[in-house]
This record gives sequence, structure tokens and C-alpha cells, in this order.
Amino acid sequence: MLVVRRSFAACFSRPTCRFNHSSPHRLLNSVTEYDVAHFAKILPTSSILSTYSPSSTPPEELDQFNSDWMGKYKGHSTTVLKPKTTQQVSEIVKWCNQRRIGIVPQGGNTGLVGGSVPVTDEVILSLANMNAVRSFDPVSGILVADAGCILQSLTDYVAPHNHIMPIDLGAKGSCHIGGNVATNAGGLRLLRYGSLHGTVLGLEVVLPDGTILDQLTTLRKDNTGYDLKQLFIGAEGTLGVVTGVSILTPPAPQASNNVILALPSFDNIRPLYEIVKRQLSEILSAFEFIDRTAYDLAVKHGQGRALSDDDVAGAECFVLVETSGGRREHDEEKLADLLESLLEADKRLINTGVLSQSPAQFSSLWALREGVTEAISKEGKAYKYDISVPLSTFKMVVDGTREHLRSKGLIGDKAVKHVIGYGHVGDGNLHLNVVADSYTPEIQNALEPYIYEVVASHRGSISAEHGIGSMKTHALHYSKSEASIALMKKIKELFDPRGIMNPGKVLEY
Amino acid sequence: MLVVRRSFAACFSRPTCRFNHSSPHRLLNSVTEYDVAHFAKILPTSSILSTYSPSSTPPEELDQFNSDWMGKYKGHSTTVLKPKTTQQVSEIVKWCNQRRIGIVPQGGNTGLVGGSVPVTDEVILSLANMNAVRSFDPVSGILVADAGCILQSLTDYVAPHNHIMPIDLGAKGSCHIGGNVATNAGGLRLLRYGSLHGTVLGLEVVLPDGTILDQLTTLRKDNTGYDLKQLFIGAEGTLGVVTGVSILTPPAPQASNNVILALPSFDNIRPLYEIVKRQLSEILSAFEFIDRTAYDLAVKHGQGRALSDDDVAGAECFVLVETSGGRREHDEEKLADLLESLLEADKRLINTGVLSQSPAQFSSLWALREGVTEAISKEGKAYKYDISVPLSTFKMVVDGTREHLRSKGLIGDKAVKHVIGYGHVGDGNLHLNVVADSYTPEIQNALEPYIYEVVASHRGSISAEHGIGSMKTHALHYSKSEASIALMKKIKELFDPRGIMNPGKVLEY
Repeated sequence: MLVVRRSFAACFSRPTCRFNHSSPHRLLNSVTEYDVAHFAKILPTSSILSTYSPSSTPPEELDQFNSDWMGKYKGHSTTVLKPKTTQQVSEIVKWCNQRRIGIVPQGGNTGLVGGSVPVTDEVILSLANMNAVRSFDPVSGILVADAGCILQSLTDYVAPHNHIMPIDLGAKGSCHIGGNVATNAGGLRLLRYGSLHGTVLGLEVVLPDGTILDQLTTLRKDNTGYDLKQLFIGAEGTLGVVTGVSILTPPAPQASNNVILALPSFDNIRPLYEIVKRQLSEILSAFEFIDRTAYDLAVKHGQGRALSDDDVAGAECFVLVETSGGRREHDEEKLADLLESLLEADKRLINTGVLSQSPAQFSSLWALREGVTEAISKEGKAYKYDISVPLSTFKMVVDGTREHLRSKGLIGDKAVKHVIGYGHVGDGNLHLNVVADSYTPEIQNALEPYIYEVVASHRGSISAEHGIGSMKTHALHYSKSEASIALMKKIKELFDPRGIMNPGKVLEY
Repeated sequence: MLVVRRSFAACFSRPTCRFNHSSPHRLLNSVTEYDVAHFAKILPTSSILSTYSPSSTPPEELDQFNSDWMGKYKGHSTTVLKPKTTQQVSEIVKWCNQRRIGIVPQGGNTGLVGGSVPVTDEVILSLANMNAVRSFDPVSGILVADAGCILQSLTDYVAPHNHIMPIDLGAKGSCHIGGNVATNAGGLRLLRYGSLHGTVLGLEVVLPDGTILDQLTTLRKDNTGYDLKQLFIGAEGTLGVVTGVSILTPPAPQASNNVILALPSFDNIRPLYEIVKRQLSEILSAFEFIDRTAYDLAVKHGQGRALSDDDVAGAECFVLVETSGGRREHDEEKLADLLESLLEADKRLINTGVLSQSPAQFSSLWALREGVTEAISKEGKAYKYDISVPLSTFKMVVDGTREHLRSKGLIGDKAVKHVIGYGHVGDGNLHLNVVADSYTPEIQNALEPYIYEVVASHRGSISAEHGIGSMKTHALHYSKSEASIALMKKIKELFDPRGIMNPGKVLEY
């Protein structure tokens, strides 16, 4: 397809061109009818949703693309493009670069920091139609897939070959593998299989000038120069559009077991983690923390029927331990021995331990942990912070935040109802959730920069998993040094000198 | 310490300035007495080895720094600097950048591609004196260490805490962790613990302008922008000097077992690998391939007493399987069951399997695989290629190379004596070694670009582990696309506009 080149200057004669007021250093242009007419040469009409002709889509049909699932971020894009091939992505990006039109790559739009929603009226480039598996080798376990493949569908694809995806997260039914890579998604399997920086073997990326960077290798080892693909993992689409992913899928465990432990004191978690790591060793696949408030909320909203009132009496917090291994009887023996040694120890670290005895019980225990998110959403509006801090400070950070809000007079039925903590102990990742009656500037201002300062004081991360998006660009300096931010900006400038790729995300304008 | 700034132009008045003929696009300057006098303000005299005063070291004392351990690469540096602190590294680098003097960061100097040896007379920056452990947390297993720590010493350091280093390689007694990171070393544990891109959590790097980039985080999860540290992993010191490493050390397995399997045909390896992966699952820690020629050489030079002549009769190749797990009896049961099922199968994939029964036998089996390198060095001069190609082509590549050399009349006692293959099946990584009476241009020209072309035809990697160094810069295009190389060059230019960091490595001038 021929891309007609027009000089950038020509744009200024068009009435719809505008100065983007939220980006003083950038001159980004709005999409015009002229652009949509060009996109119609690249894509079939059915793959274009635009308020402009020839598409003339009613604006409300764009709503789901213009806002995130929490309803927290809203963009005003007039145009959603759904390419089917990498070549089409390349042509769209090349055009937008020439015309200096901002692009927001969008996967499953399940993010939590506004990363996949336009800041103003950028073009939305949905990868949803790029959803084919390109290849899978059952011997090596290497899967190559389009970026728009839904995580769950890939899990289902490799399952008959006795493999699993190395990541798993709550949004698996809608999130895309490309989005997982772009946001460096962590999730529930990180403890066992490591981060995407290790499991992603190759990427195909369309650079901001339209160049297709083919690094879609299926090699486990390749030491031939800079590992460029790593830059795109976690760049949230600001350096290019991920269109294809090569990823190492591990062999499926033959058995999974879990146990929930009720602890009388948070301080027991550290010694408990040491013991569990030593005894379960390579079959340990999750070690999740749930504080009492989170637990009670989950139960209130229909989760957690696994434990009786007696079981939870006097528990300050809970730990969910999961094992995944190659032989059920070996794993069960290890887990039973662990539980026995914990219950018989002179210095008891746990009050109770409940071992799942069936697949239904296994799911029921997990529901306690995974159901927290749903329970929170039923309780009210959540301010969600996912932070990395030292394990020993988890409780202090949650309690400290509650006290801070109390001192501001913000605890109460009409303000903040709950301050809760849960998360991945093995990864040092605490999900701190503040549940309020509604989103208000008072609460927001009481929480930020307070929480970021607490994180910085522990040399932690203000975003362990969720990324920066548009939510935390102003707070980046709490986790990154000046030299690091300066270097990030240089890299952004090198890759995207016209500033079109997901503008306003990760780095401030 | 005050760094005296001098304008670059001043340099041209000095007689020792020279145009570097091997680098037409760069103007690098030689070290002068003036520079050494400056280095003496940064470092104590005992940390400077220079043929210039005030050091006035005899040139032969620099030989070990100027050449690699194989004696294949030779530089002509006049000056070796051994800083003790990151601040000293920063001051040295800043000076060299202003004076446009090339720097070769040197760790244990155990590389195989000339990456740590000067191309001409660059300053050698030895990290050997930066050898302190900065911190270790036995609960999380996170170790922070100076770049100059020797891998074995770190292994010893974490051992009492029941942890191991996530990498292990033949050179562990001399290689540095900083060099491991800079070269993205793979080694024997990659199958189990993944690559350094996943296990390295943070780096401290001195950039080519002297800026200290502190990304020495101890967080397992940190999604706050571009993961810059990844660029330095495998950059072979061309983008900056790694001075500190934060790395995740896994819990030590409680038991390790191994078995050697003799196979009647190479074609059996693929189905064998599938069965072994399924049955051993998470305890599989190595699956190593040794061809018959490699095996015979190892035995000839005193390795491999573990197997009898009967055991190896009719074997075309061998596979060494290792398990590492949390409970010996479970692991032994899994391994014994595997062996039994292999020996009783209707379609036999193996002739024999020998299971180690003691630590001595365990070492003896490993010696077969690890002893190949030593055996080769006793046989003659080795042309070493470590390539990634599809597993199914391993034998074809080795046989094809032998036939190619034969067709050139280069097989014989006074030319090429052996062409052998061994390597990491689980990683798709073949070590192809051509053992000759001596290094000759005829053999060299027969091997290259022949081998690189074979690799490219399989979309493989011309360097799975060893890196590019100065050996393979001209061959990079066999594994990397034009767009990738162009982007690498842009990044090099961005980080190191004056071209001082390890010049002539990874990228051609």
C-alpha cells in the first residue's frame, strides 16, 4: 500500500489542527477527516471506528475505548483503528508520525494507571484483531503469538501440550499478551517463573517511524549485542507498538496444592517465609499475604467459606501458600510435613492451617485472595497503590496510612471506609488499597504524595506491577534517580523524536 | 577529588596523540605520562600499572592484562588501573572521556571473544579491587555485590545461608560477577534459573561521561519506566562500566543427582528431552549433550571413568541429566522411575543409563561434560563457536562442518584433528569446536563465514553465550537485522558519543 507523504507544514492550514494544551513541549495534531480517509486505504471500513466519515460512528460507541474499566480515566479520541497485520500497524504509525498524530496502543484495556486511554484525542490503535498464534514448539515450549492474543486463550492453546503460560493474573480473560509485555505484567506466577524480562525471548515491534523491528527470535540464548527488546518490556507503548511476542512457556505442573495459614502476628511472616521456602523449595509457587481487613471484606462479599470462625479467631493476617509440582504424592507429602512441623513447633508461628483436599477447596482458598479485588469494588471506590517495600514494613505502611487518614479526619462512612493490604510476599509487593465512599480531592491529596514519600523512604517502588501510565508520571522521581529519568528521556527522544507514541504516559511531557 | 578539566583541543599539541588506524570514524588518544600523573591523583600508586612514570612498570607485567587466556587476542595497553570505589571509576571515566582515551573494562578476563582485551592501547580498567559484598538478605535471597567479586567467592558467601548463585560456569574460579553481567553469561544453570535478564535486579553503572547511574535496587518488582539496566546486560562494557550488581539468589537445592544416558542415535534426543521434561518437571536442572567424539576425547584425557566399554558400545552420543530438588528421596524416586521407564520402553531411546550413587560418582559424571574443554585444550588449538540452532540440527551442523573442512583438504594430523559438538540441549545452544594443530588462516577462512551462514540459514544465533567481543563484530549481521543494528548504533552513540567505552567491541567502528 502506498503511503502518500505530505509535508507537516500543510497541516496548519486545516482548521482542526490544534495546539495540545496539556503538552506544552509537543505539537500533536488531532485526527481529521482527511486522516480517516487515508486510514480507509490501509484498513477495511469494518476495522475503523471514527466519528468522521466514511466511518461516521456514533461517539458513544467509542466510549469503551476512551475510558478504562474503573471509569477513572477518560479520553476524547475520535478514532479507533483495528489493524489485522503488522504491515498495517506500520503504515498507520508511519502516517501518524508524518502527521504528528498521537497514538495510544490499546490491548485489553485492563490497566490500572490510565496507560491505555488517551490523554486527549490521540488515535487509539487497538490490537484486538491481531489475535493469531504464529507458532508453538511443544518440545522447547516456545510460543510465538500476535500481540492481541488474550492471555487466557494462550493458556488454553498450550494446555493440551502440557505447558502453561509463565504469567497469570486476574484480568487473564481480557488482557492481551502484548499489553502484558508492554506493562511488564507480574501477577501470580512471578515467584515461580520470574518476570517477563526473563521469559520473553523475542518481540516484533513497530517503531514510531513505522519501521518494523523484527526481533521475534525463538532462541533461548542469543548474545549478539544489546538486548533491545528489553526496552519495550514495561515501556507502556511509549517507544513503539508491540505486535508479536515470542515467549517461553514452562511445562505444566502435574499437581497443584494450597494451604491457608492464619497468623497471630504479622511479625511471624518473615520467619514463616524462610521455613516455607526451605521446606517446599522448588515446588513453592505462591506465598500471598492477606491482612485481616482484606480477609473480612472477602468473606463479607461471599468468599472464603473455607475457614470457620474458630479457625480465624485471633488471626492478625493470613498467608496463602501454593505448590506446583511434577508428582502429586511428593508434593502432598512435602506440604503435609510442613504443616505438621509448623503446628508442632515449640514457637508456634501459625494458629491454624487449612489444607485443600479437593479441586473445589483449592479454588475456594484462592478465592479468598483473588476475591479481595471484587470485594473492594463492591464496598466503594478504591485508591489502589501497588508498591514494593521491604516485607518487614508491610503492616507498618498499611497502619501508617490509616492513621494518617484518621489524623486528617478522613476515616468514616462518608469518607475512607477501609485501608487494607494484601500482596505477593515473595516479590516484596504490597497492594495497598484505600476504599472510600467516592473519589474526592481531599482523600487524593491526603494520600499523595504521602504514600510515595513513605515508599521513597524505604527505597521502594511506587509501582511494583501496575506501571506509571498517566497516573504517576509526576511521581516518577520518588523511585527513579535524576540520572535515570534523564536517560529515560534521552531514550524516548531517540526512539520517538516527534513524541507520538502514547504521549503523556510514563514520562511527563 | 578535583578533576582538572582540559579542553580536548589541547591534546593535539602532544606528540603522543595518534590517529587510530583501526577506527577510521573515531579519534581516540593514547595514554600519556600526563594522564598517568592525573590517574595518580585518583588512585594510590599501588593501583596503577603503567609503563609511564610515576608507575614505570616493566611492560611484561602488563602482558596478562593485554592478552586473553587462550593467547588469541593481544592488546598493547600501557596502563592498567585498579580502582577500589565507584567514585574512583567515575573520575577515571570522566577524565578519559574528556581526553578521548579508550577504556577496556576488565573482569576476570576469561572471555572467549576478545571482549576484555584492548584492540590497540586503550586503558585497561580492572575491577579486581572492587570485590566486596555490599549486602545479603537471607530471607529474600537478594545479594548486592561489587562488580569485581569472583563468582565462586559469591557462591561460597551465600552457601551458609542455604542459597546458591543463579549462574554457574567453568570459569567460576576467576570470572567476576560484573563480567558475567556485562557478557550476559549463561552457563550450566540457565535451564533452571533463567538468564541474567531475569535474575539481575539492579545495577550500578558508570556511564561514559562519568555519571554514576544508581539502579542498584533490591526490589523484585519495579515497574517505573524503562528498565535501563537491561541494556548493560550483554553490552560487553560498550555502554558503561558495571560497578555493582544486585542479584536474586535461589534457595539451595537439598539434593542433586545425575545420570548419563548413552543413545544409539542422535535422532532420539528430541523425544528423550520431551519425556525427561515431563517426568522430572521442576527438578530438571541440566540436560547436556555430548557427541561421541567429545566423549572419546574426554575419556582419552582422563575423564569419564564412570562408564565401561560395554556401556558405551554403539553409542552415537550421550546425554547428561541432572536434577536438583528439595528432598533427596523424592528426587531419587523420580529419577529411578524415569530410568526404568526408559529401559523398559518398547521403543528404546537409550542403550544404557548410569545413575550416580555417591557424590564422587556425581562429580565423575559431570567431569565427562565439563572435562571436554580441558581435553580439547590438551589436543591442540581450538576454534570455538557457541551457536544457537534448532536442536534437530545439532548433528547436521557438526557433521556438515567436518565434511566442509574435508572437502577443503583440511582434515588431518597437521591441520584439523577433530570436529566436535556438545552443549546445552535445553537452551538450544551447541558448542561447536574445531580442534587443530595450530591456528592458521586457511582453517579460519574455511570456517568463516561458512559457520555463520549455516547459523543464519537456521535463523540461529552466531553467539549464544560468548558474546561478540572483537571476534564477531563483522559477523553481527548474520544474527541481527539491519534495523536492529542501526538501532544498536544509535544507542551506542547516545550513551557514548565520544566512542571511548570498549571501542571496537560488539559494533564495528
